[in-house]
Amino acid sequence: MTDNQESIQQLLDRQEITDILHQYCRGMDLLDMDLLAGSFVEDGFLDIGPEERLQTRGASAIHETMKRMKRFSRSSHHLSNIQIKFQGPDHAICVSYIWAWHETPDGNTGTMTGQYHDEFVRTSAGWLIATRQLRMSGNDSGFALPVHRAHRNKL
Amino acid sequence: MTDNQESIQQLLDRQEITDILHQYCRGMDLLDMDLLAGSFVEDGFLDIGPEERLQTRGASAIHETMKRMKRFSRSSHHLSNIQIKFQGPDHAICVSYIWAWHETPDGNTGTMTGQYHDEFVRTSAGWLIATRQLRMSGNDSGFALPVHRAHRNKL
Amino acid sequence: MTDNQESIQQLLDRQEITDILHQYCRGMDLLDMDLLAGSFVEDGFLDIGPEERLQTRGASAIHETMKRMKRFSRSSHHLSNIQIKFQGPDHAICVSYIWAWHETPDGNTGTMTGQYHDEFVRTSAGWLIATRQLRMSGNDSGFALPVHRAHRNKL
Repeated sequence: MTDNQESIQQLLDRQEITDILHQYCRGMDLLDMDLLAGSFVEDGFLDIGPEERLQTRGASAIHETMKRMKRFSRSSHHLSNIQIKFQGPDHAICVSYIWAWHETPDGNTGTMTGQYHDEFVRTSAGWLIATRQLRMSGNDSGFALPVHRAHRNKL
Repeated sequence: MTDNQESIQQLLDRQEITDILHQYCRGMDLLDMDLLAGSFVEDGFLDIGPEERLQTRGASAIHETMKRMKRFSRSSHHLSNIQIKFQGPDHAICVSYIWAWHETPDGNTGTMTGQYHDEFVRTSAGWLIATRQLRMSGNDSGFALPVHRAHRNKL
Repeated sequence: MTDNQESIQQLLDRQEITDILHQYCRGMDLLDMDLLAGSFVEDGFLDIGPEERLQTRGASAIHETMKRMKRFSRSSHHLSNIQIKFQGPDHAICVSYIWAWHETPDGNTGTMTGQYHDEFVRTSAGWLIATRQLRMSGNDSGFALPVHRAHRNKL
């Protein structure tokens, strides 16, 4: 494979990975658990916080646990700052930023900003999430879920 | 055309479509109606809400109607989650997310989150929006425009 | 070089530029001044506002001055609307949108929306920022830095 073909392949891989990142967000906002859980490999791991109830192993368990999103009447998950590093032809590390807004039926809202730290693998069905860790970098008083805290250096 | 050339062409098409999505936002925030209306084909359709006054047919009518943005002193339209699906070489469906902030001269602000549901076509002048529907997934009390409501499944 | 190769090169260049745009944000949120200052060429210029203290020349001076970010306990810089125009094979103009949230140790927060207006150049170490101007299009009362004001047309 020439360098050029390798570069083109990476661009195509980036697009596929980006599509899955967005698919997860769509799944949450549509309350479509097939879309959401379908972003993971079969034994994928979703790690939202240090408490055991926030750590889920397996796409079908993720399908079940993420139904908790139905406590909201509306939500909007805005993804940006997609940073992909390939570790090999079939393996990538990805950090992306999320700004998420949620509203409960009583009209209360909660907003958080955070980062997804993902490991992606290429499968026969395309690129999928192997592990996802959510880290929170900011939140308002309406958002109280005990998410992992984003890292910050000391100066 | 080899598969590879087709893939490269799609990457280039995605970039062109993305540029138009951003051009529309720039048009609103700069109050540049040429940029904004120039994102549409000549008979393009902009559908913001169910009321007739929020549905506009034709780039020149869009040029006129979107001048209502001048009631704001400042605005910022942040686009993300760009999801493009090609229906053929010259036709694409696109969903993107918008977070929009507006301020009126008296200092009041309104914020909304939503989705653009677009149909893009390739023309002799490049990819342009044929139809655009805005759907709102969230808003604060300062944003009162009766926009279409974003769909959400029942679980 | 065929047109196709030129197009592919531009896609790769866009990716490199995008990576640097995100690296700057990561640098701020991680409080990693090497990442942040490493986004600039050696004599790069960072222009945040009309006051002299907000204009910094040189990557090492930027490394020093941006340590002021340590007054925040948390921050999150969300980049979107990346618009790149090539002026030649080694020179690009880029406008991108930023939504930035900051929290001080006492729990006060400040949010701003703005635009980065950048000049990028290709160096032996890849694409880097030669000049960056921040322009503010919106802010809440918690964000008081006298940033350049984003331009808006009159209608």
